[in-house]
Amino acid sequence: MLIYGKNSCREVLDKNISIKKIYLQVDFKDNDILSSIKNKNLNVISLTKNKMNDLVDGVHQGIILDVPDYKYGNIEDIFGENKFIVMLDHLEDVHNFGAIIRTCEAAGVDGIIIPSDREVLVNPTVIKTSVGTAYDVNIIKVVNLVDTIKLLKDNGYWIVGTSLMTDTDYKDVDYSGNICLVIGNEAKGMSHLVSKNCDYNVKIPMYGKTNSLNASVAAGIMIYEIIGNRKR
Amino acid sequence: MLIYGKNSCREVLDKNISIKKIYLQVDFKDNDILSSIKNKNLNVISLTKNKMNDLVDGVHQGIILDVPDYKYGNIEDIFGENKFIVMLDHLEDVHNFGAIIRTCEAAGVDGIIIPSDREVLVNPTVIKTSVGTAYDVNIIKVVNLVDTIKLLKDNGYWIVGTSLMTDTDYKDVDYSGNICLVIGNEAKGMSHLVSKNCDYNVKIPMYGKTNSLNASVAAGIMIYEIIGNRKR
Repeated sequence: MLIYGKNSCREVLDKNISIKKIYLQVDFKDNDILSSIKNKNLNVISLTKNKMNDLVDGVHQGIILDVPDYKYGNIEDIFGENKFIVMLDHLEDVHNFGAIIRTCEAAGVDGIIIPSDREVLVNPTVIKTSVGTAYDVNIIKVVNLVDTIKLLKDNGYWIVGTSLMTDTDYKDVDYSGNICLVIGNEAKGMSHLVSKNCDYNVKIPMYGKTNSLNASVAAGIMIYEIIGNRKR
Repeated sequence: MLIYGKNSCREVLDKNISIKKIYLQVDFKDNDILSSIKNKNLNVISLTKNKMNDLVDGVHQGIILDVPDYKYGNIEDIFGENKFIVMLDHLEDVHNFGAIIRTCEAAGVDGIIIPSDREVLVNPTVIKTSVGTAYDVNIIKVVNLVDTIKLLKDNGYWIVGTSLMTDTDYKDVDYSGNICLVIGNEAKGMSHLVSKNCDYNVKIPMYGKTNSLNASVAAGIMIYEIIGNRKR
């Protein structure tokens, strides 16, 4: 997987991630990055701007790192007590996914569950929008969300959905114990079967003409409400 | 100003916004949009795909609306009692701006103050990412944020900054009365002078390795905490 752009590459260089190759534009100048490359004793391939442009589609700012594909976690890792995880029900937007990963990392969430099909996976853009935090969160890819919900219930989880079709205010719930928060697709919300299998659905109240929030904003509001509620 | 793309145009057509011209691609097919154009008795200019591409840079999906430039509000409109407004201290990202507008509209915020220089203004991309809600929120453009803060204080506002450099948890504050919440720049946070002129600064606690959230996520968490606190 090719990671590019100064910010993303700086994040990867700061972490303990094995780097296969580093491509640098011949005139690359960023002393911080150059010294952290030097400290790591890494092999650097120097390329012209045109050759760099051939490697990736986005704005690389003169630096591209070749790193192993993202390593997903195992569902068993999030079995335990007082765990708080987030499940994404077929999110489509890479920026939303990246921002949600960043919020989960900041909030100390124990894991993120995503379906392996029809969902944006952890790719270089997601790593970029997560500001590198994807490497610090346990992201778990599963085949079937409904089966996973059943498995989570068997392991003591309460499943909390977010929906507009409920009267339960998100602040009127006790979020103690093992909690799995489900965030729905940007346009369609949660799928019918996922919603039906939630222990309860809650809604963030809306006071204007619009009836929905950006998915990563809604996730942020829910995650911090749950965190605050659990610490009370 | 040219608004384009089906979702944004649908939002504009649904609202009471005067439309100067409508450009439709010759083979445009979206019955909902076509019938709402018909109902409005608007003049339609039919163009080839190439001519449409010449008009805008982004993905127009066959429809472009020519509407008057965005009309900003007046600061006097937000003077009063129990008002809650949001001030953006030189935000850079159009997606963050659009998502914050959307959150403000959903939360019933009374107004958004932005500086007229070095800040992203209300442009077609912002209207798109706000899902059209920019037209339902009072957005006020001011020359100087510090002068505006002084004016707000004279009109009974408490100014609440968000900062990492404080020990005050965002949940430990009474947000009643007139409140102006300040959201800082994505990378640099609030400017020194703005921060110094806040009545108090609060922070959203972080429990991971990262020390910041996406600006629109942080704004969403703060806005809904304030809304909830005021309704208690």
